[in-house]
Amino acid sequence: MAIDHTQKINGNGAAPHHAELDASKLVVTLAKELKPVPDPETLVFGQTQTDHMLVVNYDPVVGWETPEIKPYGPLTLDPMSSCFHYCPNVFEGMKAYIGPNGEARLFRPEKNMARLARSAERVALPTFDTEAVLTLIKELIKVDARWIPTIPGYSLYIRPTIIGTRAALGVAASDSACLYILLSPAGPYFRGMAKGIPLLAVGESVRSWPGGTGGHKLGLNYAPGFLPQRIAAKQGYEQILWLLGDDEKITEVGAMNFFVAVQREDGDVDLITPALDGTILPGITRESTLALADAHTSSKITLPGVLPTQKIHTHERAITMEELAKQADAGKVLECFGVGTAVLVAPVSRIGWKGRDLVLPAHEGGLGPIGKGLEQTILAIQTGRKEFEGWSVPCL
Amino acid sequence: MAIDHTQKINGNGAAPHHAELDASKLVVTLAKELKPVPDPETLVFGQTQTDHMLVVNYDPVVGWETPEIKPYGPLTLDPMSSCFHYCPNVFEGMKAYIGPNGEARLFRPEKNMARLARSAERVALPTFDTEAVLTLIKELIKVDARWIPTIPGYSLYIRPTIIGTRAALGVAASDSACLYILLSPAGPYFRGMAKGIPLLAVGESVRSWPGGTGGHKLGLNYAPGFLPQRIAAKQGYEQILWLLGDDEKITEVGAMNFFVAVQREDGDVDLITPALDGTILPGITRESTLALADAHTSSKITLPGVLPTQKIHTHERAITMEELAKQADAGKVLECFGVGTAVLVAPVSRIGWKGRDLVLPAHEGGLGPIGKGLEQTILAIQTGRKEFEGWSVPCL
Repeated sequence: MAIDHTQKINGNGAAPHHAELDASKLVVTLAKELKPVPDPETLVFGQTQTDHMLVVNYDPVVGWETPEIKPYGPLTLDPMSSCFHYCPNVFEGMKAYIGPNGEARLFRPEKNMARLARSAERVALPTFDTEAVLTLIKELIKVDARWIPTIPGYSLYIRPTIIGTRAALGVAASDSACLYILLSPAGPYFRGMAKGIPLLAVGESVRSWPGGTGGHKLGLNYAPGFLPQRIAAKQGYEQILWLLGDDEKITEVGAMNFFVAVQREDGDVDLITPALDGTILPGITRESTLALADAHTSSKITLPGVLPTQKIHTHERAITMEELAKQADAGKVLECFGVGTAVLVAPVSRIGWKGRDLVLPAHEGGLGPIGKGLEQTILAIQTGRKEFEGWSVPCL
Repeated sequence: MAIDHTQKINGNGAAPHHAELDASKLVVTLAKELKPVPDPETLVFGQTQTDHMLVVNYDPVVGWETPEIKPYGPLTLDPMSSCFHYCPNVFEGMKAYIGPNGEARLFRPEKNMARLARSAERVALPTFDTEAVLTLIKELIKVDARWIPTIPGYSLYIRPTIIGTRAALGVAASDSACLYILLSPAGPYFRGMAKGIPLLAVGESVRSWPGGTGGHKLGLNYAPGFLPQRIAAKQGYEQILWLLGDDEKITEVGAMNFFVAVQREDGDVDLITPALDGTILPGITRESTLALADAHTSSKITLPGVLPTQKIHTHERAITMEELAKQADAGKVLECFGVGTAVLVAPVSRIGWKGRDLVLPAHEGGLGPIGKGLEQTILAIQTGRKEFEGWSVPCL
């Protein structure tokens, strides 16, 4: 294994002579037999593996080892590994699309890479060159490009993951790690989304809190939601709307950021999403949604299905369940939706809260005009049919 | 594989005909070559593996499979496994000791089993028969009994672990799991404990929160502490004293519960530990410490080194940093210590807070008389030299 003897000391207290992550050292071992690509209509989110995966390990003495694309297969890990016991595990969710000329495309991937680096830092995993990871993702996508679905609304989901692999039970930062990238062809995250997603507002279980880790994409933010989610499902709700504090501030929805569009007296619309106060995941679809609504209002673009003269004023601020209920009861809520990489834009049909259901306006096909206009615009950008500020990046 | 077709429906929504965890089905495959047992003095906590481990998998269709004791070796897992991405991972910390007649002994193991079941339920892992797990632990200890150190203060650390193994990326409870048990001979958790452990009080990063998971033994409670711990270490502190809320309530210390002994006007002593409000791990050493202090005060036992007439009044209640500082500044704090399975009783020498150090009374050998008396009593019970309410359980 080649070692790059750079002098830089990493944030992990490892030996100063450690190798940086070097995408140019990539070794590719192709699968001998390729699997049949399933009919996209039969896909369930995150349950299909492509032919290959990318794996690269970090060793506390040598640093980042040789990245390898190899046939999809199991990981072999010491049972003492930190990932099992203390959960220094981080991930990203991205998607690849086929562009107009048949080329694979990514959506604002540098945002995912920056967030992955912040996540890794938060749980004291080894640092890495984000550009190298992005290069490796592109290389893997090129190898498995035949798995990218071409049906609108379908894509190849990308799951970069880093897990701590220090094999010792003392509670300490993991000085070893395994970075790996998986691909999975995906259709709609929710079935029957056209009817909208029913949410249960939950404040007794708390997803995140000030000084906690909810603003980072850590695996450990998710398991605490499994039990509340199961209880919600038994009551007929699809996802949880996580509340925080005595004033029941809305934070996020399952694996999505939350948006509500409210009718103003002057005919304009307020589009409100909770502010990034450290308890909320800084979603890339969230950021894109805000930017596109602003672009519509400043006439840079026009959201399809929304009048060019319809001003949408975006707000990143705290919103409580009480405020939302008051607006809904007054008939001022136009639409509520969640956004995220996996779901894109998902309409919310009703919100269970304090023993009643806040019923939200129904729209044909699920999404209201603003949600639909945003979804169509983001999809057009993602698939390279519409250019917007260089957000869509071809895998060259 | 034999399947026990019981009718009981488990909490996981799995098929009703699933096998319960059955210790009588245990299969033992012994290692062909046994490793040399290292000199106990050279042991670093959690870095030595014994010859064997126990593994049993849960499958959503068949239920609990055949438990197997086999040579210590790697786990082979699908890279999509839930344990890597969403962290439904739980564990316990226990210890085995050699009794006066050479028999292996456990300390209040049914408490660990009950907590393991509560932890598993909190992250929606499959349910299991806790008595079966305890039987399997005892069988594993018997196989690796030669690894139990006999030097006072040394023991065989036991790490029962359950990880979610559902191999899919959709965010959902893990309907598959791997339960495994590791053994590791261990000496003192901290080196140089005789000088006491310096703590840094931290309130900006928050370990746990009302409605969070701090009251359960989940792997995911630990990784968020790695970065603050590293920052504290750079400032010369060994562990973090986690604070909560604007009033800076003391919660726990790294991987220990916190105790402070305060001199009263009437000559008695108040022994205070934060109450179990859901943000604090319900430690078994914590519970034992409270019970033994109470037993001393009611003259059921006498703590060695403490006058039989010295009354120790235990209190489980909120204590703020401000209160602790006030008592320390007034010279009323007799001793502070942390307790836990791994450390047993660890003296606290000073606490960094608001840019200054709260210096606590120094005692020869580290622990003050109450901490020392508790440590000696617990050790005597653990090693079967003293009987107390059936707390020490031989592995028969």
